[in-house]
Amino acid sequence: MTESYPVTERSRVRRAHERGSHARADVYAVLDASPLCHVGYVIDGAPYVTPTLQWRVGDRVYWHGSAASRFLRAARGTPVCLTCSQMDGYVMARSAFSHSVNYRSAMVFGTANLLEGEEAIGAALRDMIEDFFPGRWETLRPMTDQERKATAVLWMDIEEASVKVRNAPPGDGAEGDYPVWAGVIPIRTVLDAPCPAPELPADMPVPEGLAALVASGRLR
Amino acid sequence: MTESYPVTERSRVRRAHERGSHARADVYAVLDASPLCHVGYVIDGAPYVTPTLQWRVGDRVYWHGSAASRFLRAARGTPVCLTCSQMDGYVMARSAFSHSVNYRSAMVFGTANLLEGEEAIGAALRDMIEDFFPGRWETLRPMTDQERKATAVLWMDIEEASVKVRNAPPGDGAEGDYPVWAGVIPIRTVLDAPCPAPELPADMPVPEGLAALVASGRLR
Repeated sequence: MTESYPVTERSRVRRAHERGSHARADVYAVLDASPLCHVGYVIDGAPYVTPTLQWRVGDRVYWHGSAASRFLRAARGTPVCLTCSQMDGYVMARSAFSHSVNYRSAMVFGTANLLEGEEAIGAALRDMIEDFFPGRWETLRPMTDQERKATAVLWMDIEEASVKVRNAPPGDGAEGDYPVWAGVIPIRTVLDAPCPAPELPADMPVPEGLAALVASGRLR
Repeated sequence: MTESYPVTERSRVRRAHERGSHARADVYAVLDASPLCHVGYVIDGAPYVTPTLQWRVGDRVYWHGSAASRFLRAARGTPVCLTCSQMDGYVMARSAFSHSVNYRSAMVFGTANLLEGEEAIGAALRDMIEDFFPGRWETLRPMTDQERKATAVLWMDIEEASVKVRNAPPGDGAEGDYPVWAGVIPIRTVLDAPCPAPELPADMPVPEGLAALVASGRLR
C-alpha cells in the first residue's frame, strides 16, 4: 500500500494547499480522532449530509444505522464523501480577513457498500464497540439475531482522501502594531465524569477502561 | 412566518421520529449552538461535504470562503444540505444494540446563493464577526476593498429543515439486572484560556467579551 492517496481532480487540496496532505497516516489520524463524521450522499440529484459515528479497519471506513434507514439503503453502491472535522481554536487577528479557525479535517471518497451476512454484521459491531471502548464487548449482554437483522452496516474503501490542518497563531503578525488583542482561543472536546443509569445498582463501579478514556482527553 | 418548516419527503424525520422536530425554534437553537457546519453539494453528480462556519440572520443561513473556491463557485444556484451536529454524550447500555449517542443535529435544505456587491459582503462579514465575538468588529483594522473582493459569501433561505435530539439515559433500563455498567459519558466542547499571538504587547489585556465567552461554556 502506498503512503499517500492519489491526488485527483476530486480530492486535490486547492485552497490553502500548504495546509493539505494526502498521506494515509495523516488521513487516519484525523479519522481516528473524530468519531463523529458527516456522510454526504446524493439521492435523486440532491445532497444529503447525515451525522453518524465512523470507525476504521485499515483502509476501510465503517458506519451503521437502522436496517430500515432510507439513507443507508439509498447509499448502497453510490459515491460517498465522508468528512470528519474538529475545531481546535478560534484564531483572532487584527483584521476580520485574517480571522480563522484552527482545525483538522479529512474528506474521504469512496463507494458505499452494504455489509452482508449476520456473522459479518456481528463482527463489525464488535469492532465498533471495541474501537470506542476496548474490552467492553465481552461484558455486554450478547446480541440477538433480531438485533443483527435490524442493523445495517455500511463500509467503503478509501479511494481518495485529503486532510487539511491549521494549527498556528493568526497570520497577520506583520500588522502586530494594530492595537487590538490577537491570538488563539483553544477549543477542546472533552468527556466528563460518567453518569450511571438510574436503575444501576449504586455499588457498581465505572469500568477501569471507561475511567481511563475520560481521563485521556481523547474521544476514543 | 409559521412556527414550523414544512414536512416534506426530503426533510421528514423517519428513524426514531420521536426525537425529531421541524419547529423553527428548535432548528435555530441547534444552528446557533453549533458554529461548525458541514455543507453538502453535488458536483457532476458526486457528493462533497465541506466543513465551514455558519451564521444565521433570521431564516437565512450564511457561510463564506475564498472567492476562488471551487465549492463556493459550484454551489451557486444549486441545492444544498447544511448539517450541524454536536455530540453530547456516549450512551452505554447493557446490549451493544442499545448503545447510542446523545446529540443535537439539524439538517437544513435550501438553494445556495452568492452574495453580490462589496458593500453587502462587508456587512455580512461584520455580522459574522459580531455573531461570534460581539463588539469586536469596531476594534479591528478596517477591511480593504481587496479583502472584500477575495471573499465569497454564500447564503440560503431555509426551505425545509429537521432537528433530531437525543438526551436520555440508555434505553434498555428494563435489562437493568444485567451485570454491566451502564450510563452516559457526557461530551462537551469547551473554550480554553486565550493564548496571545507571539507579537502581541505583553500588557495587552484579553477583551472582556472574549473572557466572558470563554467563561460562558458556549461556542459563541
